[in-house]
Amino acid sequence: MMTFFFAPGTCALASRIVLEEVGAPYEPVRIDFKTGGQRAPEYLKVNPKGRVPALVTERGVLTETPAILLYVAQSYPDAKLAPLDEPFTLAQVQAFNSYLCSTVHVAHAHRMRGNRWVDDEAAIAAMKKKVPQSVGDCFALIERDMLAGPWVMGDRYTISDPYLFTLAQWLEGDGVDRARFPKLADHTRRMKERPAVQRALAGEV
Amino acid sequence: MMTFFFAPGTCALASRIVLEEVGAPYEPVRIDFKTGGQRAPEYLKVNPKGRVPALVTERGVLTETPAILLYVAQSYPDAKLAPLDEPFTLAQVQAFNSYLCSTVHVAHAHRMRGNRWVDDEAAIAAMKKKVPQSVGDCFALIERDMLAGPWVMGDRYTISDPYLFTLAQWLEGDGVDRARFPKLADHTRRMKERPAVQRALAGEV
Repeated sequence: MMTFFFAPGTCALASRIVLEEVGAPYEPVRIDFKTGGQRAPEYLKVNPKGRVPALVTERGVLTETPAILLYVAQSYPDAKLAPLDEPFTLAQVQAFNSYLCSTVHVAHAHRMRGNRWVDDEAAIAAMKKKVPQSVGDCFALIERDMLAGPWVMGDRYTISDPYLFTLAQWLEGDGVDRARFPKLADHTRRMKERPAVQRALAGEV
Repeated sequence: MMTFFFAPGTCALASRIVLEEVGAPYEPVRIDFKTGGQRAPEYLKVNPKGRVPALVTERGVLTETPAILLYVAQSYPDAKLAPLDEPFTLAQVQAFNSYLCSTVHVAHAHRMRGNRWVDDEAAIAAMKKKVPQSVGDCFALIERDMLAGPWVMGDRYTISDPYLFTLAQWLEGDGVDRARFPKLADHTRRMKERPAVQRALAGEV
């Protein structure tokens, strides 16, 4: 039995969807960000970065969404959630997920987590102001060039799909008009129809 | 023959080292950031994100350092640059590389690329001010918890090593004192001894 540390409304949802897709046995443990649970000494022993998700396996702790997604896909190859034996296609999946973690998630984080990069209050406010544009630009690129449709990689559902679905949940909060992205809207609708996604979302409440 | 788009002093160095490690045939093409070459229409056709690296393979274009590193490792399995068939260990490699792209590189980017996230000049100056602390904190965590030594994953040299070496090149510029990190210093020294690293660095000049 694995232990899965998460907080509602975070990127941990992507990993949870994938755990549900493959039917992996895991115990979810909620970290309360409101009381700073991610910085509590007992959690820092699990993940010294003080972030979620963290997946405790029998071999040890794994962090970072793209790594956890690939780990679950590779541990449950029958679920065919990643083109494990096709280097170019797998690299496309990993490139998409890298873009989400290093550019899209980071653009979003400037709204709520500005103090990671600046101490000045006025600068934090200035950062928040640009989030609709920077996040909107990311999703415009995804819509135009990266989301093949109906799934990210085309006809094949992969670990990139739960990750995109998860970050797209934040668009309203980031002040980005979803109406600009019809392919993404179709993607979100399809995702919500999947039982694994419904179970993962129910676990957030 | 692949084509490798890079710019000196960027994270593209990591991919180039790995290309050199495996002996892959590639033509390096330098993008001139000083004249905005990364935003030139002909380059945006290759990589619409306007960044480096980009690796043009016979199957298509790959971007994002963690994806390119895994692609080269998987395409040249005899070089044993990643534990391809060990899901947990591979996830550790990917987690390390994800941390570098989504947290370490991002912290660094607030010194030179602040306008990605803010328009206000005073805020850009405030961002620069925090870079020594935020980048220093990242490398303190790497030194304490993530760099097993002598290589990132211990005795085994992997695709995480060229990536760490590359980002560590930026420490002086970011105002971080390298003397705080003796394990990293040993890692950098070992990396510089490798012929593939020497060839890749020679290609930057």
